[in-house]
Amino acid sequence: MLAKGVFIVMEGPDKSGKSTQAGLLARALRGRGMGVVHTREPGGTSLAEAVRRILLDPRHQVEPLAELLLYEAARAQHTKETILPALRSGRMVVCERYTLASLAYQGFARGLPLDVVRTLNRIASYGLKPRLTLVFDIPESEFGCRDRSRRLDRIEREGARFRRKVRQAYRRLSATEPRTRLLNGRLPVEELHRLVLKTVMKTTIIPPRLLSSPAGGGK
Amino acid sequence: MLAKGVFIVMEGPDKSGKSTQAGLLARALRGRGMGVVHTREPGGTSLAEAVRRILLDPRHQVEPLAELLLYEAARAQHTKETILPALRSGRMVVCERYTLASLAYQGFARGLPLDVVRTLNRIASYGLKPRLTLVFDIPESEFGCRDRSRRLDRIEREGARFRRKVRQAYRRLSATEPRTRLLNGRLPVEELHRLVLKTVMKTTIIPPRLLSSPAGGGK
Repeated sequence: MLAKGVFIVMEGPDKSGKSTQAGLLARALRGRGMGVVHTREPGGTSLAEAVRRILLDPRHQVEPLAELLLYEAARAQHTKETILPALRSGRMVVCERYTLASLAYQGFARGLPLDVVRTLNRIASYGLKPRLTLVFDIPESEFGCRDRSRRLDRIEREGARFRRKVRQAYRRLSATEPRTRLLNGRLPVEELHRLVLKTVMKTTIIPPRLLSSPAGGGK
Repeated sequence: MLAKGVFIVMEGPDKSGKSTQAGLLARALRGRGMGVVHTREPGGTSLAEAVRRILLDPRHQVEPLAELLLYEAARAQHTKETILPALRSGRMVVCERYTLASLAYQGFARGLPLDVVRTLNRIASYGLKPRLTLVFDIPESEFGCRDRSRRLDRIEREGARFRRKVRQAYRRLSATEPRTRLLNGRLPVEELHRLVLKTVMKTTIIPPRLLSSPAGGGK
């Protein structure tokens, strides 16, 4: 018996390893015979990708409240068009960023009232809550500007103070939000992956024999 | 003594005469020596215009809730960047569409819960309420598709049933919402303009002598 229709979220600052770990987790779960949708915010739909381009365009002046509402608009579309149908059909959904990101970035780091963020999170997610949210913690010196070969987007241009706030927010939220686990993002990729997989398996109540039989684990 | 910092909204279905009447009102008020900002939703800022392009692009699938959140994002930016500074500096603001449009289109016509629309309206407008909202009523046969020379946008492609709902919503809201007046949009342009001007003058408590001295009324 495989756990079905489970919604797993990966959170953390830029460059904390969300994409890498989400990809590895999706592959491992598929290798165990599960149907998995791997997606990310903001994005995953044509509308959401268009919103993403607006959000990251350095030419626009964007008020914190407008920024939050744009992320929530992308979230609503993504949830309705991609996440809910996948869950309903019994697949697992692994999503990079969800409502916790709005609390960390627009709430704690940009200073919007947390009750406003929570209200919008609840509305835009149609009340959907992740079964498990994994937060990757890395020192702020390691995120935001690693890849100097390309132009920085609007969010990446924020300074060190903003990045410190984001990290602290994620650490705080990990301690207070339900079904949320903080993991050390500095662990070697494979070691972190095993920890992620173990945590996911435990939370989604999959029989332990599946943990030791990585069928199709080679690809 | 001129009334200053007054926020006037013009509402109604597509092609009900909002732009024409807003333009005439702005000109008449300027002719009476007032500082006036004439603007529209969604738009009025570079971010809001980018959102507008997404909203009207027929290629995107847009859930009603995502549509509402996009309008609210544009509204938040427009309110903070354009409307509030103008009001604070003592100018009058004449705006085509505001929160009532969300209730009519996304609430009544698309069927989103009205309390959700009201919550988002309150958040995105920073609590700002129009001093007066004028609603232009026209039969649904007259709006939506008048100009066949250009491609229809996403909203204009909605059918007759949608247009009927929008009209009925505006009529209902005019009867229940505070500081809202329904006007007959089929009146000749100049006659409607005089009615608009009279209603605005009364509501904003400007001495009656100004009503009869259209200084600079020629241009």
